[in-house]
Amino acid sequence: MELEFIDWLRGEIRSSSQVPLGPGDDAALIQFTPGHQCVATVDTIIDQVDFLSAETSPASIGRKALAINLSDLAAMGAKPVAALVSIAFARNQDITFAKEVYRGLLTLAKDFNCSIAGGDTTVYDGPLSINITCLGEVLPGKAFLRSGAKPGDALLVTGQLGGSILGHHLHFTPRITEAQWLSQHAQISAAMDLSDGLGLDASRLAKESNCGIIIDLAALPVSAAAKKLATQSPTHKHATAFTQFSTATTERLHAFSDGEDFELLLAVSPPEADRLLSLQPLSVPLTRIGTFCAQPGLWATDSAGNLRSLPAKGYVHGENA
Amino acid sequence: MELEFIDWLRGEIRSSSQVPLGPGDDAALIQFTPGHQCVATVDTIIDQVDFLSAETSPASIGRKALAINLSDLAAMGAKPVAALVSIAFARNQDITFAKEVYRGLLTLAKDFNCSIAGGDTTVYDGPLSINITCLGEVLPGKAFLRSGAKPGDALLVTGQLGGSILGHHLHFTPRITEAQWLSQHAQISAAMDLSDGLGLDASRLAKESNCGIIIDLAALPVSAAAKKLATQSPTHKHATAFTQFSTATTERLHAFSDGEDFELLLAVSPPEADRLLSLQPLSVPLTRIGTFCAQPGLWATDSAGNLRSLPAKGYVHGENA
Repeated sequence: MELEFIDWLRGEIRSSSQVPLGPGDDAALIQFTPGHQCVATVDTIIDQVDFLSAETSPASIGRKALAINLSDLAAMGAKPVAALVSIAFARNQDITFAKEVYRGLLTLAKDFNCSIAGGDTTVYDGPLSINITCLGEVLPGKAFLRSGAKPGDALLVTGQLGGSILGHHLHFTPRITEAQWLSQHAQISAAMDLSDGLGLDASRLAKESNCGIIIDLAALPVSAAAKKLATQSPTHKHATAFTQFSTATTERLHAFSDGEDFELLLAVSPPEADRLLSLQPLSVPLTRIGTFCAQPGLWATDSAGNLRSLPAKGYVHGENA
Repeated sequence: MELEFIDWLRGEIRSSSQVPLGPGDDAALIQFTPGHQCVATVDTIIDQVDFLSAETSPASIGRKALAINLSDLAAMGAKPVAALVSIAFARNQDITFAKEVYRGLLTLAKDFNCSIAGGDTTVYDGPLSINITCLGEVLPGKAFLRSGAKPGDALLVTGQLGGSILGHHLHFTPRITEAQWLSQHAQISAAMDLSDGLGLDASRLAKESNCGIIIDLAALPVSAAAKKLATQSPTHKHATAFTQFSTATTERLHAFSDGEDFELLLAVSPPEADRLLSLQPLSVPLTRIGTFCAQPGLWATDSAGNLRSLPAKGYVHGENA
C-alpha cells in the first residue's frame, strides 16, 4: 500500500488512555485497567468464504470484520479495549476501496471505544482477507465461559434468530452493551455468541458444559427475515431431518439452523431466568428457549410428546482452532 | 480444516499459568503479571510475498511467522506471553503440511515460553498466509521506543548484518533473551528491530527520534553470508548510489541494505555505549555503528572526509500501518 494511505490511516486512528503507544513503533502498548484480565480473540474473514465483495459495500465488509470480533468479546462479558487490524487487499482494490473498508471498521470501533492499536496492510495475489485481533478486559472470575452451565439451568437468547443472510449478517450490533449489563447485574453460568446457528452452537455450549439441552422449538424468537424466507420458500432444506417434530415449522428451522445471528446464548439458574425474563433489562428481548439437562446432546419434544434427539444443524464455513 | 486437525492442534498446545483459558471458548483469557503493560504486535507473512513455499520447508515457514513477531517484542524489550495464530492454507496444502507448519511454530513458541492462546485455521483460494498476533509484557516506562534517541547517543547493533537471503531470514533467533538482559541491566534510549535493512530502518529510528544518524560504514559487522554474496557478485546493485563513499564496499552494502537481519538497533548514551561495548554481555557481539546527530537523515563521511547524505536503502515488500 502506498505511504499516502498509511498516513491517512494514522490520521484516522484516535488515541486512547488505554493505548499509550499506538501504530508506528515495533509494537503497541496497551494498559489494561489494574486488576483486570485480558480477553483476546481473533477472526479472519475472506472474500468468497465469508462474504462476497462483488455484492457488499467495502464499508460493510470492514464493519463486519470488527463486529464478529466484538461479538466474541461480548460472549465473554468483556469490555473492548483495542484491536489490531491486518488487511490483505486484492491487487485490483484501490486506495478508495481500502479507505472505505477502514471507514466501516473505524466507525464501529468508535461506537464501542475500541482503539486501533496496530496492524498491517498488504496487497497480494489473493482475495480480500481481513484479520482482526480484539483485546478486551474483564475482572478475574467474571468472564462468561462456555463450560459453566448445569442441568436445570435455563437457556436464554438475546434478540431474534434466523434469516441473517437478508442483511443482519452485515449490519448486526455486537451485544457488547447487553453483555456489560449482564456482567454487572446478572449471574451468568455460561455464554457464547451465535455465529454458526443455534443448533450447532447450542450443541457446542452443551458439550463444553458436559450437559445436554432440551430445546423448546415453539419458543424460538423468529426474526422477520426468517419469516420472509419461510414465505419465499415454504420447505426448509433441513425439513426432512425434523419430520418428527411438529413444532419445527419452516420459519423456526431458519431460526434454529441459520448462521450469523451474533446474538448471545446464555445459561442462567431458574430463579435468575425468572428475574431476567420479567425484568427484560436489555435493548433487545431476552427469551427462554430451553433447559439444560444431564443427558448429552440436543433434545426436543416430538409430535407424540416424547423427548427425542434434535439434529444439531447449523452453518459451517470453516473451523476455529 | 478437518476436525481431526483441530483436535491434533489442541493436543499440541501447552497450557500456561498466564493463559488460564486457551483455545476452545469464544476468546482466550490472558493474565499479565500485575503492574505490567501489555505489548501487542501483529505480522502477516504470505507465500510469494514474504517467502516461497516451493523452496521452503513448512516448518521453517511456521517458525518464521512467529519469529518475526517475537523479534518485534524483543525490539520493545518485552517478555513474550501469548500468541494468536491465524493460518489460511491454500487448497492444495494437506493436513501433513499444516501440521509441519505448526510444528515449526510451536517449537519456537516453547523455546520462548510463548503460549498459543487461540487463532483460526481456514482453507481458501489463495496463497498460504500466516497472521500472528503476539502479546508480551513490560513494566510501565521500561518499553524500548523508537522515539527516545538524542543527538550524541551511540547507535549499536547486535550480531552481524547482511546476506540473510542465504538462510538467516528463516533460521534467525529473535533477540528476546538479549533484549531482556538489556531491559534489566542497561539504559536504552531507543530501539527497533532490523527487518527492512539497516539503511531504511536506521532512517526510521532517526525520524521517530527527531534526529539524524552518522553511520560509520567501516564499522558495520558484516556477516559471513554478506561476504559470500559479495564474492559471488562483486558489484552491489546499489553501488552507483554510494560511489562517493569509499568505505561502501560490496559486502558492507549488503550489511547496510539487505533486509531481514532481525537484529536489534539500539540507541544508548556515550558512557552506556562504552560500558556495554567493553562488557559485551550478550550471546552475540554488540557493535557501535554510528552516532545520533541533530541534523535529520542518514549521514556518512565521504571519500574526501566530508559528511554527506547517505542513501536510505533497504528492502521494501510491504508497509506497516
